[in-house]
Amino acid sequence: MDKNHQMWSDLGMDLDKHDLLCAALPGAYGDVFLTQENRPQGMDYFNMVAADIHGIRPAELIQAQKEGRKVIGTFCVFVPDEVIIAANGIVTGLCGGSQFWVPEGEKVLPANTCPLIKASVGARLGRTCPYFRIADMFVGETTCDGKKKAYEILSEDVKMHIMHLPHGKRPQDIAAWDKEILDFVKVMEDFSGNKIDIDKLNQAIHIVNEKRKALQRLYNCRKNSCVPISGRDVLLIMQIAFFDDPERLTAQVNSLCEELEKRIKEDVSIAPKNAPRILITGTPMAVPNWKMHNIVETSGGIVVCEENCTGTRYFTNTVKENNKTMEEAASALTERYFNNIHCACFTPNPERIDDILRLAKEYQVDGILNVNLKFCNLYATENYFVERRLKEEGYKVLSLETDYEDSDAEQLRTRVSAFLEMIEANK
Amino acid sequence: MDKNHQMWSDLGMDLDKHDLLCAALPGAYGDVFLTQENRPQGMDYFNMVAADIHGIRPAELIQAQKEGRKVIGTFCVFVPDEVIIAANGIVTGLCGGSQFWVPEGEKVLPANTCPLIKASVGARLGRTCPYFRIADMFVGETTCDGKKKAYEILSEDVKMHIMHLPHGKRPQDIAAWDKEILDFVKVMEDFSGNKIDIDKLNQAIHIVNEKRKALQRLYNCRKNSCVPISGRDVLLIMQIAFFDDPERLTAQVNSLCEELEKRIKEDVSIAPKNAPRILITGTPMAVPNWKMHNIVETSGGIVVCEENCTGTRYFTNTVKENNKTMEEAASALTERYFNNIHCACFTPNPERIDDILRLAKEYQVDGILNVNLKFCNLYATENYFVERRLKEEGYKVLSLETDYEDSDAEQLRTRVSAFLEMIEANK
Ligand code: SF4
Ligand code: SF4
Ligand code: SF4
Ligand code: SF4
Repeated sequence: MDKNHQMWSDLGMDLDKHDLLCAALPGAYGDVFLTQENRPQGMDYFNMVAADIHGIRPAELIQAQKEGRKVIGTFCVFVPDEVIIAANGIVTGLCGGSQFWVPEGEKVLPANTCPLIKASVGARLGRTCPYFRIADMFVGETTCDGKKKAYEILSEDVKMHIMHLPHGKRPQDIAAWDKEILDFVKVMEDFSGNKIDIDKLNQAIHIVNEKRKALQRLYNCRKNSCVPISGRDVLLIMQIAFFDDPERLTAQVNSLCEELEKRIKEDVSIAPKNAPRILITGTPMAVPNWKMHNIVETSGGIVVCEENCTGTRYFTNTVKENNKTMEEAASALTERYFNNIHCACFTPNPERIDDILRLAKEYQVDGILNVNLKFCNLYATENYFVERRLKEEGYKVLSLETDYEDSDAEQLRTRVSAFLEMIEANK
Repeated sequence: MDKNHQMWSDLGMDLDKHDLLCAALPGAYGDVFLTQENRPQGMDYFNMVAADIHGIRPAELIQAQKEGRKVIGTFCVFVPDEVIIAANGIVTGLCGGSQFWVPEGEKVLPANTCPLIKASVGARLGRTCPYFRIADMFVGETTCDGKKKAYEILSEDVKMHIMHLPHGKRPQDIAAWDKEILDFVKVMEDFSGNKIDIDKLNQAIHIVNEKRKALQRLYNCRKNSCVPISGRDVLLIMQIAFFDDPERLTAQVNSLCEELEKRIKEDVSIAPKNAPRILITGTPMAVPNWKMHNIVETSGGIVVCEENCTGTRYFTNTVKENNKTMEEAASALTERYFNNIHCACFTPNPERIDDILRLAKEYQVDGILNVNLKFCNLYATENYFVERRLKEEGYKVLSLETDYEDSDAEQLRTRVSAFLEMIEANK
C-alpha cells in the first residue's frame, strides 16, 4: 500500500470508491486546466496542490493534529477563520463540488436539495474525502434551509457547532452576530484547550487580512483590458485558498501577482482583446466544480470576476487590526463578515446588486452570467431582482441554473455561446 | 353586476379569471364534503361560510375597514393574532391552497418553490382572491427560504412587515422573539393609530385563548373510539378559523362540540369501528387543499388528528392571561408561540417528534401519514428523523410528497389504499 492509501485507510475511508474519484480527477483537471495556452508560471504551485489534492495537504493536517492542533471544517464564508486560527486551529473549507458525492448524499437527503449540500453530506457519510474525515469538528451555520437541516444529519456522525446567522442587518442582528462570534471563541477555546486572548486574535486577523489582500491583488490584475490569467485559474486558486495554509497561500498568490503585473505591463494577455469579458454572480463553486468557467472560456469568453462566495465575497474588505478588547475584535469581525457579505440568505439584500454593478464597472464587464445551483431557492428567488436591475442598468445578462451533472453541459454551452455571440455582435 | 361582483370589481380583482375559480369551487366542495353521510348538523355554519367564501366574510372585512379597522394578512402561526386584535385589527390568514393560483406565482418565483408559496404570491399578484386584495398590510416571517424571499417580491406590491424568527430555542433566541413581538406591537400601533395597552392585550389574549380551547375541545372529540366527525370536516373548520371572526368561530365550534359530545355518548360514529385511524403530520394544508384527507377518507381510513400548522399547532397551549406589563405579556406570547410550536424551521427540532408520539397515543392512532408539500426542504429533510423514530417506536408510517395538482391523485390513492390495507391486515 502506498503512503496515500495507507493514510486514507487510517482515516477509515472507503478506498475502492475513493480510487474511482482519484482515477477520474486527473483527466478532468487536465482537460480544464492543462489545455490552456500561455499559463502563468506561478500556477505551478497550484497545479501541484491540485494534482495531489487528497495527499499533500491531508498529510500536513494529520501531522498538525499529531502536534496537538485541531482541524475545523467550515461550509460558509460567514464562519470567521480568525477565531479558529487564534485557537491554534486549522481551517479547512468542506463544501463538496463534485457529482461523485451526490448519490451518497441523496441516501439521506431529499433529491430536491442543492447539489452542494448533497455532495458535502455524501463526502462525509460515504467516507470518500480525506478532508471530511480529518476535520475534528465541523462548524455549520443557519444560512439556508437545506444546510441548516442537513447539519442535523451530519451531527449524528461528527461533532458540530452551529452558528445562528440572523437574516437581517438591523442593529439587533448585528449585536446577535457579535454574540455568536464571542460564543464561538468559547467553543474554540474549550475544544482546542487553548485560551484565545486579544493578541492571538489580532495576530490571526492579520494573517487572514494578508491573505485577503493577496487575493484582492490577484483580482485587481483581472480589471485590466489585458487579461494575464484565466478565470479558471483564478477559480482554482480561490478553491485552494479554502483549505491551504493561509500564509503559504498568501506568499504563492503574491508571487503569482508579480508575474501577472509584469504581464500587464508587457501586455501579455491570455485572451484576445475583443473576447467578451464575463462576470459570474450567484452561488458558490466548490472544488472541483469548474463547469461554467470551462464552458465560458472554451466558447470564446473570458471570466474576469466572480461575485460569489468562491470569489469576491471571500476576500473583499479587511478586518480592523489592533483591537484592544475581545468585544472590539468581535465587532470588527462582524463588520467584515456580517455587514459586508451580501448573501441571498439576507432579507432584503439589495446591497448584492450594488456590489455586482460596482464590480461590473471595475472589471470592465461585457456581460453577466447569473449562475445558480439547482434547488437553491434563495438565489433563484433573488434572481428576480438581480436580473431585472442589471438589465435596467443596461447589462447583458444570462441566468442559468445547473447542478454537478455533465448531462446539461452541451445545452449550457449552446446558450453561453449564443450569449457571447450576441455580446460580440453588439460590441 | 351582482353585489359580490361589484365588491370584487371595487377591489381591483381580475373578474374573468376569478369567475373561473368561483365556477370550479362548488363542485370540488360538493365532491369532498357534501357526499359525506351522517354529517353533524353543526357543520351547516361552516358549509355556509365555505359556499360564499369570497362573499360573506370579505364583505364583513370591508365593512370593518369602513369603520376604521385594519385588516392584517398573515402566513404563519408564529405571528401573534393577539397583537393585531389588541390594536382593534382583524387577522386573516392568507396561505394559498389551490393550484389555481400557482401559475401566476410561477411568473415571478422559481418553479422549484413549494406550492403554498407560489399560490400565495399568485393569489395576490393575479388579483384573484379578495382576501389578498382586502388586507391593508401583510405580516411575513423569516421561517423558510422560500417565504422569506417571496415576501421581498410581495413587498413591491403591498405594505409588509417582516418578523425575524430565530431558528433555535436558546435563551438569546427567546429574548430575540420577545423583542420581535414588542416591535410588532409598535408597528401595529403606528399602522392602526390605536395604542395597545396591557388591558387590550390581555383581552385579545383571552379572545384567542377561548378560540384555542374550543378547537382543542373539537379535537378531543376525535380521541374517542367513536369518531363523531370526519377529518375533512375538522380540516375545513381549521381552515375557516384562520379568517373567520374569532368570537363567532368559538361559539360555532363550541355548539358543534355539544353535538359531537352527544354523539359520542350515543356512540354515533361517522366511520366503522375498525376503520384505520390516521394521524397526518407535515406541512400545512391551506384552504382549499383537502386532497389528502379526501383520499384517506374515501379509501376506508379516518383522519383523527393533524400534527401540523392547520392542526394541533394552531391551538395547542393557551397564553397566560392577566399579564401585568407589556413585557410580561410578550413573554407569555413567546412561551406559547415560540417555545411550543415545533416547526421544522428550527434546528434541531426533536420536540416535534415527541409531539407526534404523544398525539399518536392520545388519538389512538393506527398509522401515521407524513405529508409534505413538494419543494419544502425543511420538512423533507426533517423527515429523515421523523420517519426513523416513528418506525422505531413501532408505528406504521407512510411518507408522501405532493403539491396542489390533481395529476398525482390516483397514484397517491393507490399508495394510501395499500397502506390502509396493511394496517387492517395487522389489526
Ligand atoms: S452563498 Fe451564503 S450560505 Fe453560501 S457560503 Fe456564501 S454566504 Fe454562506
Ligand atoms: S447554493 Fe443555496 S441551497 Fe446550496 S448551500 Fe448555498 S445557499 Fe444553500
Ligand atoms: S409550518 Fe412553520 S413556517 Fe409554516 S405556518 Fe407552520 S410554523 Fe409557520
Ligand atoms: S411548506 Fe415548507 S417551503 Fe412551504 S411555506 Fe411552509 S415551510 Fe415554507
